[in-house]
Amino acid sequence: MTMKVIESVAGMMEFSRQLHLQHQRIGLVPTMGYLHEGHLSLIRLVREKSDRVVVSIFVNPSQFAPGEDFEKYPRDFERDQSLCRQEGVDCIFHPAAAEMYPSAHRTSVITDQLADKLCGLSRPTHFQGVTTIVAKLFNIIRPDIAVFGQKDAQQSLIIRRMVSDLNFPVQILVAPIVRETDGLALSSRNKYLSPAQRAAAPVLFQALQEAEHLLQSGETDSNKIRAAMMAKIQAVPEAGLDYLAIVDFQQLEPVQQIASGTLIAVAAYFGATRLIDNIIIA
Amino acid sequence: MTMKVIESVAGMMEFSRQLHLQHQRIGLVPTMGYLHEGHLSLIRLVREKSDRVVVSIFVNPSQFAPGEDFEKYPRDFERDQSLCRQEGVDCIFHPAAAEMYPSAHRTSVITDQLADKLCGLSRPTHFQGVTTIVAKLFNIIRPDIAVFGQKDAQQSLIIRRMVSDLNFPVQILVAPIVRETDGLALSSRNKYLSPAQRAAAPVLFQALQEAEHLLQSGETDSNKIRAAMMAKIQAVPEAGLDYLAIVDFQQLEPVQQIASGTLIAVAAYFGATRLIDNIIIA
Repeated sequence: MTMKVIESVAGMMEFSRQLHLQHQRIGLVPTMGYLHEGHLSLIRLVREKSDRVVVSIFVNPSQFAPGEDFEKYPRDFERDQSLCRQEGVDCIFHPAAAEMYPSAHRTSVITDQLADKLCGLSRPTHFQGVTTIVAKLFNIIRPDIAVFGQKDAQQSLIIRRMVSDLNFPVQILVAPIVRETDGLALSSRNKYLSPAQRAAAPVLFQALQEAEHLLQSGETDSNKIRAAMMAKIQAVPEAGLDYLAIVDFQQLEPVQQIASGTLIAVAAYFGATRLIDNIIIA
Repeated sequence: MTMKVIESVAGMMEFSRQLHLQHQRIGLVPTMGYLHEGHLSLIRLVREKSDRVVVSIFVNPSQFAPGEDFEKYPRDFERDQSLCRQEGVDCIFHPAAAEMYPSAHRTSVITDQLADKLCGLSRPTHFQGVTTIVAKLFNIIRPDIAVFGQKDAQQSLIIRRMVSDLNFPVQILVAPIVRETDGLALSSRNKYLSPAQRAAAPVLFQALQEAEHLLQSGETDSNKIRAAMMAKIQAVPEAGLDYLAIVDFQQLEPVQQIASGTLIAVAAYFGATRLIDNIIIA
């Protein structure tokens, strides 16, 4: 089967319907394109667990706030296509914004108490945009399985919550963070970094590693671990901290004692570029 | 096939999956039970257009506000079962509240600009409860077609908007209002009425008929038609008007000139019982 590129909602729904009639399990990798090794790792994971792989490529305007980087978000659809082809993707769903959001659009999916924390503090409408577009993609593509990256840990938690609360018949997988050799988590936004910012950006991972080292040495007090991480980040002038959260990975509420299931998440600005990283304690 | 009664979400999802594997088209009639001829008309309509009929019976707590009639809403599951059996229903989905809303539930589906008007003015959280439960039922039952009653005209508009905005692969039908011989629209809540209130309640339909007579005589000014309807309703002391809306049936915005597609909707209290009725101009 050659790789299909589908731009219309109706076309995608029909293709998905045909696959289901043939009892093919559909795996979905939702992306905003400008694919990197992190995305490819998601594709490879879902490929193993499904009969057909659909990659959606859609820079979703509703998850960007005014003044964020929607317009300049990097796009390279030719390159994305050839990467998908190399990975054996069966179908790219690549709709225009007007196809996904006709003018009368008024419905949103919201998740209380999870969407207003961490990244939601500096991006108050972000997760509502994410849950709404993911609900749409699930209805259009009807995947049996969908995979998200752990880099967006809060997103993955909110998506799982939505799937459970709204009973979407979709299995959610979350794949590990893929990193550059110096530890920087892969992100399409890394492209924005100046050489000096790029050199400084691994500090987020270094701070997370510092936390792991302290945990391995027996320290579990979140205040002490936070202080050590802050010291690392504040020593790097290019890094402007947005948040450093040490929370349980269910409610996203701060914890005093770090334990299995604690999420340590960090967001920082490097110039205008906001990067995130995290670890979940095993 | 004998009628199945399914109480678990997982059981319903599996039954639906089996039907889809057999290429059976599923028709859904979502109800809160205490079935009357209005519901049965929906069942008969969807029966013609699908291979298998599922009736959901669930008094959805999230669409009632505190102080509304959730606790006393009439229930008679034995009678509902026998009516469904008579109508050739294939499956009743009858979950407990804890099955539909486990304690951690945090996700809602909202529709802006439509849910805060008309019934939404006196029931501000009602339609969020409706869209959320309908989204859940669609994901659990995966109907090909679902039917709603025109008595809840605003609900039907909001459901259509949700289905379109979130791309649910479900065809929505809206069935005409079924009335008692004196014109009162059938409703499970009619049971609450005292004899005097029951005798007074057809005034809502009479006011709508008055509007139709005026329209047939060439009057299209919504102020004049509203005044005539108000006079009818205010002449009946048992009726306490909640709203009388003359709006376009797309945006629910007031119209000056009544035309094809105008919704005339009325809600009034008879004692503590709130009844609604409407017509859509052809």
